[in-house]
Order: sequence, then C-alpha cells, then structure tokens
Amino acid sequence: MREFLIIGSKAKTDKFSLNDLPGAGRIDILCRCVSSAFFLSHDIRRDVNVYLLLLGPPDPPKVIKIVGREVKYMPPDERGIAGLIRKALEVKADESWKKSSPGIYVAKKGLEELLDETASDVYYLREDGEDVRDFETKDGLFVLGDHKGVPRELEEIILSKAKKIIGIPTKSLMAEHCITILHYELDRKQLNS
Amino acid sequence: MREFLIIGSKAKTDKFSLNDLPGAGRIDILCRCVSSAFFLSHDIRRDVNVYLLLLGPPDPPKVIKIVGREVKYMPPDERGIAGLIRKALEVKADESWKKSSPGIYVAKKGLEELLDETASDVYYLREDGEDVRDFETKDGLFVLGDHKGVPRELEEIILSKAKKIIGIPTKSLMAEHCITILHYELDRKQLNS
Repeated sequence: MREFLIIGSKAKTDKFSLNDLPGAGRIDILCRCVSSAFFLSHDIRRDVNVYLLLLGPPDPPKVIKIVGREVKYMPPDERGIAGLIRKALEVKADESWKKSSPGIYVAKKGLEELLDETASDVYYLREDGEDVRDFETKDGLFVLGDHKGVPRELEEIILSKAKKIIGIPTKSLMAEHCITILHYELDRKQLNS
Repeated sequence: MREFLIIGSKAKTDKFSLNDLPGAGRIDILCRCVSSAFFLSHDIRRDVNVYLLLLGPPDPPKVIKIVGREVKYMPPDERGIAGLIRKALEVKADESWKKSSPGIYVAKKGLEELLDETASDVYYLREDGEDVRDFETKDGLFVLGDHKGVPRELEEIILSKAKKIIGIPTKSLMAEHCITILHYELDRKQLNS
C-alpha cells in the first residue's frame, strides 16, 4: 500500500469557490496531488490512499481521506477533484471518519493523531533527503508539504515519526511532481523485483 | 532546449467554458501538460517550449506555442492555464505565429509543418519505446498524445520525422506524468554529466 499525506498549510476548511482554487488556500495544489497519486492512463491505482491535511480557516485541522480501493466517479481534473473535496467539507466533521462520497472521508484530526493511526512506515519528503533512487522500499506513507513547505512545529512531529527523509536531487519540484516521480521510482523497483 | 508537443485530438479550437475543461475536448489534459512542462517549485523552466496541437472543432488544426523564456503571468493551475489558451484562441489565426499574451502564440498549422519548423531532434513517446532511462540525450522535441493516443495518420508523420521512439516501461501513464518523468530523467543526466 502506498499512502500520501499532503499538508495544505493554508487550505480552506469550509466551502470554497470552484472558480478560484488557488484563492482557496491553494486547493489547486492538493487537487493535482490527488490526480498524480491515483491516475494512470484510463485507470486508477487502487493500492493508494491519500490524506489531505487542511490547515486553513475557518475550522482547522481537517483531514480528507481518499481510499483508492473504494473511490468512484473521481475525474482527474482539478475542478472535478475540488468538487469532491468541497462536498467532503460540507459534512459535519468530528474525530471519527465520516463518508461524503464513495471512498472519500472527512474527520477533524491533527497531524500527530493521523500519523499514529497509520499502519504504514512514515517517510518525509524533503529536498535534502536521501536520494529516492537509492531508497529501498515499495510502500509507505509519504508526507509532503505544499508551496509553503511544512510549518516547523508540524515538521517536528513528522521527524519524530518518520523512518527516513527522502528527496529528489534534481530540482526543487512541486508536490504533485514529487508524487509522480515517487510512484515512478517505486514502480521501477517493483518491476525489477 | 526541451520542447514538448502534445496532440489534443479532440481539443476545441474556439472559445470554451473555463468551468468544463474536460468537456472542451479534454483541454484539462493539455493544461496539466503545460503545468508539468514548465513549473518548478516557485519557478518556471525557461529552457522549455510547449506546442499544443488542437484538432477538435470548429477550426482545426490550430497550434498554441508557449515560450518559456518569454512567458509571464502564467499560473500552474488548470483554470489559469486554460484562460491563457482561450485567450490565444480568440486571436484570428493564420499560418504565421500571432502573439496573444507574453510568450504565447497561436497559428493555423498542421503537424507536418510544425515538425518541419523545429530545430530540435524529434522523439516520439509511446509505451513500447526504448526505456527513457537508457535514452542518451538531454534535449529534443518530445511528441505525446492525449487520452485518445495519436491518430494513425499523424503517427505516420511523427514516425517519418522521429529520431527514436522512447517509452516509460513501468505503467501506462497519462501524458502530463510522462512529461514530469521525462524532465526528471533528463535532469538526472544533466546532474551526472
């Protein structure tokens, strides 16, 4: 199982306009991360889960969980994915996962609780991490920041839980591209094993 | 110089709604390709050009050219990029390049003419091609199809001009993810050279 947790440091936690995703605390980035995490050509990766940790106003933190094995009717475009996120934000959230549409859940949880819940090994993606190509695993929960990076107090939590910091040594990349490359390198390991 | 040509086999060649990019002949795919081709974290790759060949109704073929060295005010989100494409489609196009906004041009050109114009070596991305990791170049014009693949008569033109067919052997991927991976593999070669 591959899991991705993307930290939306400013992402809105209430209804937002589908016509201005960047203005909703860069929900556009989270949508592209979801698309990169799940979509193949004419197929969806069923062995993937995505967690979006939304830390913007008015009601942070909220987490949206997308379960690849269950998800239905999810299109790969930003607006389509944003519509599903917005629908999840309309649900009255509490500490337990509440389903908003097939395979999509929402809860009021913070980072620490979320990381404590996962059965996967936790890896943190940061530019100075170990080269992803030398990294010896096919699975795990991979934690990424958005355009603002990860706030320091959250980074401390991640580092206390993470097995390793991994990085992509070529360029400073956007989160969605890191996910695509991570999949690619892990797929290659699977292909060669 | 890295150049990408994406063939939008159904992409509209006239004004379309920004609220339904998939319905405009999958303009959403082209927007994600543009985003993958140009964007780094808080930066743009200036050594990249993108050509979008639009083959949908009502006035095919049209080509939109985006010149990384010149482009300004381009956001990485689909709707933002689609707005720039739509603006280019409002220009009365003929055989010569007409500027619609900084770094963005439109012309009425077909595939053959476009490939004849380029100074770059042409490479065709197809699933059965030579493994991108073994591919020995850092530059070129890379031709990709959209969700429908490349129509047969156009593929013949590409094959007659292409130096090589290259592929990503892991999974059947969407065009925008192929661009991200291609950049990544070429960046690695540059890093190691």
